[in-house]
Amino acid sequence: MTTAVACCQLAPQLGDLAANRELAGAAIADAAGQGAAIVVLPELMSSGYVFESQAEARALAEPPDGPAVTTWARLAADLDIVVVGGFCEAAGAEVFNSAALVDASGLRCVYRKAHLWDAEPRWFARGGAPPPVVATRHGRVAVMICYDLEFPEWVRLPALDGAQLLCAPVNWPAYPRPDGERPAEVVRVQADAAINRMFIAACDRIGPEGGVGWVGGSVIVDADGWPLAGGSTSEVQVTLLAECDLGAALDKRVSPNNDVLGDRRPELYRRVAGG
Amino acid sequence: MTTAVACCQLAPQLGDLAANRELAGAAIADAAGQGAAIVVLPELMSSGYVFESQAEARALAEPPDGPAVTTWARLAADLDIVVVGGFCEAAGAEVFNSAALVDASGLRCVYRKAHLWDAEPRWFARGGAPPPVVATRHGRVAVMICYDLEFPEWVRLPALDGAQLLCAPVNWPAYPRPDGERPAEVVRVQADAAINRMFIAACDRIGPEGGVGWVGGSVIVDADGWPLAGGSTSEVQVTLLAECDLGAALDKRVSPNNDVLGDRRPELYRRVAGG
Repeated sequence: MTTAVACCQLAPQLGDLAANRELAGAAIADAAGQGAAIVVLPELMSSGYVFESQAEARALAEPPDGPAVTTWARLAADLDIVVVGGFCEAAGAEVFNSAALVDASGLRCVYRKAHLWDAEPRWFARGGAPPPVVATRHGRVAVMICYDLEFPEWVRLPALDGAQLLCAPVNWPAYPRPDGERPAEVVRVQADAAINRMFIAACDRIGPEGGVGWVGGSVIVDADGWPLAGGSTSEVQVTLLAECDLGAALDKRVSPNNDVLGDRRPELYRRVAGG
Repeated sequence: MTTAVACCQLAPQLGDLAANRELAGAAIADAAGQGAAIVVLPELMSSGYVFESQAEARALAEPPDGPAVTTWARLAADLDIVVVGGFCEAAGAEVFNSAALVDASGLRCVYRKAHLWDAEPRWFARGGAPPPVVATRHGRVAVMICYDLEFPEWVRLPALDGAQLLCAPVNWPAYPRPDGERPAEVVRVQADAAINRMFIAACDRIGPEGGVGWVGGSVIVDADGWPLAGGSTSEVQVTLLAECDLGAALDKRVSPNNDVLGDRRPELYRRVAGG
């Protein structure tokens, strides 16, 4: 049995919360109409990304029971699907770069980005909690955000917690790369998946904003690290859809005598954890 | 200033120690003749790989001052180069899947593979020491072996110790992969390199042995994770050569405000080290 996973690669409008709710809502409904059971949206889908001040970020931030996540939760209930999307989170005096997972039962978790990119520390506080792993009716689904994916120690945590699919809202800034090469971010996602035998759905954005261009490299990779959909560069809004045999992620064997988690030697890894 | 790094992808003959010394010696001399300053040989270059018994492995094992490593050290001295190669190591009652780094001054380190593949535990003891990082006149060079590369915690250790180039003797068994894809092992090496901003030279073998075929996927990747040489499948003995600006590996910045090592949050990674 497979699960249809979608990435809705969209172009959020900086600062237009209502337009972004409408854009995401239409994309979620369209993906569900195509059969998607799990839908991933970009990082900071609610607000856009390229803020210029802390005040701007704060003005665009919403709590998890605010309009953006509430809209996604209503659609998840109406359509009986799982939605993972990034939003600008207001939490008391702080603002976080967060992602929510909602399903038919409502809000299941909020994750706060732990590894912040470039100017983000100017407006976002750093998350300090590990990536959550949520038992959905399709299997165990984890959440992290963009630059987090480049810290394999961080990716390892949900794998150790039994995640079968890692959903990662991202906003990948575009950099030059050699001709014929996949985006470097995609290569790293492939490796993240393979070394943990875990599916990964990374949903990127498009639409230049404040001088920043984006890879448009949304990708869904299987537990061997091979792209099932996406993974190149795109400049259009698009919904990627891939049938994922999430049960494959429960089998960590890579040879008759090897297991990617069982073969770890954590007692030798202390220094990666500051020990 | 760049350093010429070579991978000599060879076909060792199982059990023929003298032939393998000759094969490696000729390849080292040839690589040096092409200008290589650092030469990497495959895993278990001294002995071949597909043993059938502990007794066979023991009979083919040599100490670090045995003929194989001594030959490489003599060539390193004669040619004023660095050589890293895999050998079947005799150590008292134990046998290890090891690699030596030699330079003009002689033996600099022996590394013992810590993550064993498939049948290897039947004849090899597991190493328990971290990958060594050796200060050579070309920069800091680390050593690990094959399946070790699939544990990013392990790859992180030499990066934390300042390695600029990781030399990895490998014997990558061939598996099917989707059309048009690079070998999965190469993808993982690309990610290993990029997330640490460290060059990696992985030297594979060819020549079917005991029913096992090999990827022949030797690759030299730069600190951004892009292949400078190799990385596809080959069925021939070949010397890859790439000019590597190893100084680039000293700069861990990936944006004006990001540093791949400095951005780590080791206090949050305790569980990857069993904590």
